[in-house]
Amino acid sequence: MGAPAPTDFETRTAELPALEPGQVLVANRYMALGAVMRTMLAGGTASLPGFEPGEPLFARTLGTVLASAAPRVAAGADVVHMAGWSTHAVVDADRCRPVPDGDPMRHLSSGVTAYVGLRLAGVRAGDTVYVSSAAGAVGSAAGILARTLGAGRVVGGTRSAWKTSELVDRLGYDAAVDYASGDVEAALAACAPDGIDVYFDNVGGDHLATVVGLLNDGGRVALCGTLADRPGPRLDLPAVIGKGLTLRGFRASAHPDLHDGYPAPDLPHVVVDGLDAAPGALLDLFAGRYVGTVLVRLDGGTQ
Amino acid sequence: MGAPAPTDFETRTAELPALEPGQVLVANRYMALGAVMRTMLAGGTASLPGFEPGEPLFARTLGTVLASAAPRVAAGADVVHMAGWSTHAVVDADRCRPVPDGDPMRHLSSGVTAYVGLRLAGVRAGDTVYVSSAAGAVGSAAGILARTLGAGRVVGGTRSAWKTSELVDRLGYDAAVDYASGDVEAALAACAPDGIDVYFDNVGGDHLATVVGLLNDGGRVALCGTLADRPGPRLDLPAVIGKGLTLRGFRASAHPDLHDGYPAPDLPHVVVDGLDAAPGALLDLFAGRYVGTVLVRLDGGTQ
Repeated sequence: MGAPAPTDFETRTAELPALEPGQVLVANRYMALGAVMRTMLAGGTASLPGFEPGEPLFARTLGTVLASAAPRVAAGADVVHMAGWSTHAVVDADRCRPVPDGDPMRHLSSGVTAYVGLRLAGVRAGDTVYVSSAAGAVGSAAGILARTLGAGRVVGGTRSAWKTSELVDRLGYDAAVDYASGDVEAALAACAPDGIDVYFDNVGGDHLATVVGLLNDGGRVALCGTLADRPGPRLDLPAVIGKGLTLRGFRASAHPDLHDGYPAPDLPHVVVDGLDAAPGALLDLFAGRYVGTVLVRLDGGTQ
Repeated sequence: MGAPAPTDFETRTAELPALEPGQVLVANRYMALGAVMRTMLAGGTASLPGFEPGEPLFARTLGTVLASAAPRVAAGADVVHMAGWSTHAVVDADRCRPVPDGDPMRHLSSGVTAYVGLRLAGVRAGDTVYVSSAAGAVGSAAGILARTLGAGRVVGGTRSAWKTSELVDRLGYDAAVDYASGDVEAALAACAPDGIDVYFDNVGGDHLATVVGLLNDGGRVALCGTLADRPGPRLDLPAVIGKGLTLRGFRASAHPDLHDGYPAPDLPHVVVDGLDAAPGALLDLFAGRYVGTVLVRLDGGTQ
């Protein structure tokens, strides 16, 4: 399938259903958009749900409970849930996670995901860390957090020349490659003259195979994301064995013990205003026009 | 290239050179043959040396020092080195590892390799462990050692029907699949009805990709070997990420700390007598006619 177009989206107004026992009514305040939605629009994967045409999209969303028919979650509580792409939502309380405040970046950014991956990869003082899709929500956080974990050199990869500049000038990367152009392996090797110790992988595919060739002995890969339209990489197993490499897939939710210690730094982001602007923002995100986390203000009010 | 033939081998008699400072003369007693020699005959890999036509082959070898021109290694010491395929060898003392006794299986088997891989994969009580090339030198040890580490179910894969019987009847595997025939995925799934927790991989290629599909959440793969003529596997990254899988390449020599605790069990093996029998034994090994470690008695005597 091709990229979605604005005409693929439709805004509907609907009556909210009455609360059933165990449900809460949430006024949605912010939701986060992500490149992962491209994979979800393409039907998802074995471990990632796809979007169903005609059904509302979903997104990680922060809101305030207006009315509750569930003892677990009181009216007035701030909660994170997945029923975004709407100003209000009726949600099972069991699918809401109460949070202590209404700070959207704290609860909707992918900072914790980046942090867990870097911790699993065991970033050590002086390591050279390479992050692909480094301008994205996860990648922009990974670059900043790698530094807090002691990385000596942080290199980013992205898909356009202006974003490589953003990575170095605004996001604190030491060097960056545009992996959509030219000889990626040579460009990346030049950015990491002492080799790569940790690769935070947001794209998978052939790019992963290329990075494996540049990893140092004992190198570690945190496998965080993969684009649905890329075939799995053909791994050079003799290199993986000879260099003693570790590749580890993860989802942050499976490692709650590693959330402790997350330093919650100020992460790059943009805020887009209003549900009506969300389809355009998603297409802009797919087109590579943003750096950092993309939040949509849904403004569900407090009635 | 095809399989080697007996006519590809030649036995030569040569004068041993005089010892130079730092060298020792070793009477070779045993050497170990391995499937990895197929990869070495095919030219090796980035991390595995290839054999050079016309040059002596090499092999992990146990011998006794007859004369020494090196202060590090005294005459009479038992040593392990790589200059096998000969009755006597002049070797740099720096390339000899002194060992406390002359027990060939203790020093030439791949038990330590299997042990290190299982330790790195973190075998836990009750785990289902699957081992490919399970009748080979490494695999036969891995099956036995997995049990000592607490595995609940140990499944082996091999390339012939008689070896699947050997695995279950003689080597202590709970179940075995012949992965050269039929629907491997279904057969393996039937052998591991609760899924696979740890995969000890000796073959790589498509078989690794198949096993990834059968691994449980949090599954771990010890990448130990790969056949030179198989392309690297196309990894299903969404599965690796969604299930939180860890794939780890290793060589035992890089993890000396994990050698401690190796229980040195009695491992399956055959002994072939004499250097002249070694080429035939190697071809028999490639043809899948042995189970366990294959030792050649070189009988370098003590002069």
